[in-house]
Amino acid sequence: MNNYYAHSLPANTQLTKQSANRCFDGEQHYYSHQSSATKTSMTFSIYLPDKALTGQRCPAIMYLSGLTCNADNVTHKAHFQKKCSELGVIFIAPDTSPRSSPDTNAENTSAENEVPNDERYFVGQGASYYVDASCAPWSENFNMQSYIVDELYDLLRAEFAISSIGIMGHSMGGHGALLLGFKFPSKFVSVSALSPVCAASESAWGQAAFTEYFGEDKALWQQFDASHTIETVGQQYSTILVDQGAADDFLAQGQLQPTKLQQACEKAQQPLTLRYQAGHDHSYYFIQSVMDDHIHHHCKAADLPNNR
Amino acid sequence: MNNYYAHSLPANTQLTKQSANRCFDGEQHYYSHQSSATKTSMTFSIYLPDKALTGQRCPAIMYLSGLTCNADNVTHKAHFQKKCSELGVIFIAPDTSPRSSPDTNAENTSAENEVPNDERYFVGQGASYYVDASCAPWSENFNMQSYIVDELYDLLRAEFAISSIGIMGHSMGGHGALLLGFKFPSKFVSVSALSPVCAASESAWGQAAFTEYFGEDKALWQQFDASHTIETVGQQYSTILVDQGAADDFLAQGQLQPTKLQQACEKAQQPLTLRYQAGHDHSYYFIQSVMDDHIHHHCKAADLPNNR
Repeated sequence: MNNYYAHSLPANTQLTKQSANRCFDGEQHYYSHQSSATKTSMTFSIYLPDKALTGQRCPAIMYLSGLTCNADNVTHKAHFQKKCSELGVIFIAPDTSPRSSPDTNAENTSAENEVPNDERYFVGQGASYYVDASCAPWSENFNMQSYIVDELYDLLRAEFAISSIGIMGHSMGGHGALLLGFKFPSKFVSVSALSPVCAASESAWGQAAFTEYFGEDKALWQQFDASHTIETVGQQYSTILVDQGAADDFLAQGQLQPTKLQQACEKAQQPLTLRYQAGHDHSYYFIQSVMDDHIHHHCKAADLPNNR
Repeated sequence: MNNYYAHSLPANTQLTKQSANRCFDGEQHYYSHQSSATKTSMTFSIYLPDKALTGQRCPAIMYLSGLTCNADNVTHKAHFQKKCSELGVIFIAPDTSPRSSPDTNAENTSAENEVPNDERYFVGQGASYYVDASCAPWSENFNMQSYIVDELYDLLRAEFAISSIGIMGHSMGGHGALLLGFKFPSKFVSVSALSPVCAASESAWGQAAFTEYFGEDKALWQQFDASHTIETVGQQYSTILVDQGAADDFLAQGQLQPTKLQQACEKAQQPLTLRYQAGHDHSYYFIQSVMDDHIHHHCKAADLPNNR
């Protein structure tokens, strides 16, 4: 990718632009920056419609990706750019965890680049669950809740022309969006999720991760469980939108458990639009198929006049 | 990817289904099959709207990809599925060359899987230029013209509900679409290209490849040069659509040469719509930005009633 076009960041920016590509009536950018929350370099992608590039404030959507993904998967495969270009929406895709730096040249081989990992794909790098871990060795770097809702949130607000932020995600990232959306409702104007893990503390994936990140401290398990959080904090949004593929293997395996989310929303009196999409699985082919509806959902909450 | 849904191929099919995923109102499939033209196994992707899945004939677009790509790149990144779903269009993405089989298990280690290659990315595997090579070692497997316009073409017609086929491509594949579209106009109803190499025999990339595939036989170079072919055969289509990013590094380097295509079309009295897209580069971010216009172009030629 090439940097043909200089979106001018302030001179004192903490961001390093990795790439910029014209895409519809806007640009797809990638940035890296040093994170104090994770003590690593972090990368995110951001789609900026022309309106935002010229400094006019636009609503933004923060998208949290699922297990094994990084910022690339959603940026390449979720097909959000066209609708965001049309409506004037910023779309932000953070990484799913801190990572060891792949670049171990002489200048860059400090201990801070050695991030713990686990050989299982649902624990460790690529599988943070967007929590602040309390147990070693994870607690040193795996502070993704603080990264997302404090550090990156503030950085984005400072560096880009953002009017409001909605949060959405897929699978593990769907859990993250539900969790952080309800834990920090003053930060987000809207919440939606695609095939979310609805209750991490009650799914096999989430239990494996939470055992590593929190040990046996079940109070922490609950604090970082999306459905438990919704039940606890009660209604926060006019409605939340959740799409679930009806032919999703992970639904059949019990990793996702949308009925637990339904029950939590009922107890919380939180309106929920939960749609089962016939024939659809857990893949990005499903995500792209419902992406436009989710962008419209967030734009409605952001009160965007041209949203249809 | 999982095969949740059995699109029923005839029992005597030559195709092996690799995957099927629900995507918008249709399915994204991958198939492999043994090719007599290349003497290897070949893979292609095909998007089938519901109309085609239920046996009603639909217009198809054959998309030829550029250097280093396989069927995945366009299938993941070009964002054609939504528009093809809406309009009822089949979208086919063949591989860019024969390849050595990555699967060298005991049953599958015959000599036919050893395909020649070149260490340069613009010659050999992933860089066939869609020609029939005349020189060893390439002539054994690199018969991609025959593969595309005869073998795969007939196979697709036999196996899927196709009413007509248009051809398009990007970069090296844009050259392939222009070349094959004008060399075999009875096979294709429409032609378009994205950032095409317009005259392979006059670009550094193409010269390197043609030197390998045809040696010093300059008559063959001309037979497989798109602009020369257009000049030779004259007008074949009501118009052809070509989009070119104005900020494309390969345009500046002289690999693409759209003015040669313009000159050839003028001599051939072939109407050409050549659009320079400001700020756009050579990437899939460019491809996705103009994809819908190309689908409409092909649908117009296919006389699709709901094309808008």
